[in-house]
Formats: sequence, structure tokens, C-alpha cells
Amino acid sequence: MDALTDTAELSRADATRARLLEAAVTAFAERGFHGTTTRDIAAAAGLSPAALYVHHKSKEELLYLISRSGHDHVLRLVQDAVASSDDPATALRRVVHDFVVVHARDHTSTRVVNYELTALNPEHFAEIRDIRHRIEQAIRQLIEAGVAAGVFDTPDPRMAGAALMSLGVDLGRWYRDEGGWSPEHIADQYAEMALRIVGARSGPPGTTR
Amino acid sequence: MDALTDTAELSRADATRARLLEAAVTAFAERGFHGTTTRDIAAAAGLSPAALYVHHKSKEELLYLISRSGHDHVLRLVQDAVASSDDPATALRRVVHDFVVVHARDHTSTRVVNYELTALNPEHFAEIRDIRHRIEQAIRQLIEAGVAAGVFDTPDPRMAGAALMSLGVDLGRWYRDEGGWSPEHIADQYAEMALRIVGARSGPPGTTR
Repeated sequence: MDALTDTAELSRADATRARLLEAAVTAFAERGFHGTTTRDIAAAAGLSPAALYVHHKSKEELLYLISRSGHDHVLRLVQDAVASSDDPATALRRVVHDFVVVHARDHTSTRVVNYELTALNPEHFAEIRDIRHRIEQAIRQLIEAGVAAGVFDTPDPRMAGAALMSLGVDLGRWYRDEGGWSPEHIADQYAEMALRIVGARSGPPGTTR
Repeated sequence: MDALTDTAELSRADATRARLLEAAVTAFAERGFHGTTTRDIAAAAGLSPAALYVHHKSKEELLYLISRSGHDHVLRLVQDAVASSDDPATALRRVVHDFVVVHARDHTSTRVVNYELTALNPEHFAEIRDIRHRIEQAIRQLIEAGVAAGVFDTPDPRMAGAALMSLGVDLGRWYRDEGGWSPEHIADQYAEMALRIVGARSGPPGTTR
């Protein structure tokens, strides 16, 4: 096989792998991990059941890849938003905005990423749990920084963080593309609610209420 | 069959039906509706697969009975809480408190009740959707009443209501009995956050901020 054919073969394999992942997201979101067979996924991707195993080891591996990619994406997005401003209120507004947009826009994969964790094998589950902890920690530390700077007022930053995450994650359950609210619109409103939840002082830092 | 035997037979049948419902809640919560067979449910209730059909028409009927009972319970609880006080802030605190307690305490059935709705048949789905609308409406109208009375300040009562419901419903995903927070503790904190979300004036009605 010359180099050109090699590259073409590889990119064709990549495209098939991506198609299988996409079919798995749709199937898991509709029928759940345990309600989906590898046969369902292969058929939706236009492949034979046996062909799936050429590209992915198992149904669980597909779930892991989906979960891993979803969690990595959200962790990066949260870290970037935290780093986007030294002002805790500005940074938190950005965190919640971006977190909400991604969960509303990608509501189908959001359901798989958040509701099928217990179907992962123990090793994969531990890896994903670690990323989830880092996401929670980044949000909690930002709230704690705001409290320490005297610009937020909340009795329990960890619980406030749990509430903010619920606002985003639960969009996977109720958000529908055909509804009247765009992801951006919800994100803007939820970001303002988040500032209220953490007791952000109104007005710029240095002013009093 | 005399009256006594008749009653004993009936109550035995009721007990079996209840055992099947309990087994179905556990199985649906663990493996999802589509990942659960009637054989799984019957086995968990200590019955033969055929015996299940003596008591329930189908797997879907079990899901419907679970959904119906869960939604009826939450609707009553929300209506009672709304009616518990003429002061919107006091009533809203109670609504969110009670809503949160039931979703944390019954987190296993909460998952089934909220995440498996699309598995209901169209007729049952329409019936449950109607109860959900009444729950949403009761919460939204309470927020609107607070805004009208000048004690709440929020730009969109419907969206604030969606946020409050997410705080409760999402407990079905993350709440664990072995965690450090009791349902009551979360309920008290979330009720305070809810008052912040709707922009409740601090202090009793008639005072200014």
C-alpha cells in the first residue's frame, strides 16, 4: 500500500468510527445503554454487526468514548471560562453561560454523558468521575474565591456549585430544539440567576449594596 | 368463596401488585425501561414471567402506574405548598423545600418518573404531560403573584420556574443516600437559593431592601 492509499484508508476508517459514535449517541439517548444492542448501532451506521468490532471493541467502549469526549470538552470550557477574568462575577457569568449553552445545544449527547455513567466499567467510571470532580472543583473554587474577595455571599459554595451544575445538566432532560428558547437566551438568563444564587453584589467591585 | 376469603385473596393480589411495582422501579432505574424485560421484573418480585401478566397488562403499564403515582404525588405536594401561605415568599420556600425533599428521598423512582417519559404510549404520555403542565403552572403562577405583589423581581417567571424545577428533578441523577447531605438539609438551602433566584426582597413584606 503506498502512502496515499494508506492515508485514504485511514481517513475512511476515521469517518466510519465517527459515524458509529454518532449512531451510538442517538441510540443510547433514545433507548438507554442497556436498551441498545451493537446490532442497532451498526445498522444505524449502515454497517454489519461484525463490522462494528473492526472499529470499536465493545458497546461499553463506545459509551466510554462518548463520555470521555463530552467530559473533556466541558472541563476545558469551564477552565477557560474561570481563567477568562480576575473578577469572580464576570468569570462565573461566563462559566454558567458556556456550561448552559453546551448542555442545551448538545442535549442529546448530554443525556448519554450524564445519565449512563453507571454502565461504564469500573476503570472507565473512575476516569470519568475524576474529570467530573475537576469540573465541580473548578466551579466551587471560583465561588470560594468570590466569597473570600467579599463579592459573593453564600453559606456553602459546594452546594451552590451543585445547584449551578444542575441548571445546566438538567437541560439534557427538558431542552428541545423546537421550543421557544434558544440556548443563548437560556444561558444569559441562567447566568444572571447564578449570580443571584451565589449572592453576587450588584454593581462593580468596590461598591456596596 | 366467602367474604373473608375474598378479602384475603384481594389483599394478597394487592401485595403482589405492589411488589411488582417496586421491582419495576428498581429495574427501570438501574437499566432503563428499554433495558428491562418483564422477565427481570417478575424474577425480582419472586414470580414467574407469566404471573406478571395476571397482575399487570404490560411493562408499559407498570411504567405508567409508576409515572402516574409519582406525578400525582408531586402535583398535590406543590398545590398544598402553594396554598399554605398568602405570602408568596413563604409559599415558595415551602414549595421548593417539599419538592426537593421528595426528589432527594425518592431519587430512585425520581429517575424513572422523569427520564423514561418517552417510553410511555401516546395516550399515557399525554396524560402525564398534562400533570406536568399543572405542576409547572402552579409554580409559575406563584412566582407571577410575587412579581405582581412587588415582593419578587425576576424578568421571566416561566424561566425562573424551570430553573427551580431543575434544582429538584436533577437530584434524581446525583443524590445518593450515603452522601453527606440529608434531603432536609439540601431542601433548606435550595429554598433560600430559590428566593434569591426570583429576587425575593429580604425581610418581611412592606420593608424595603
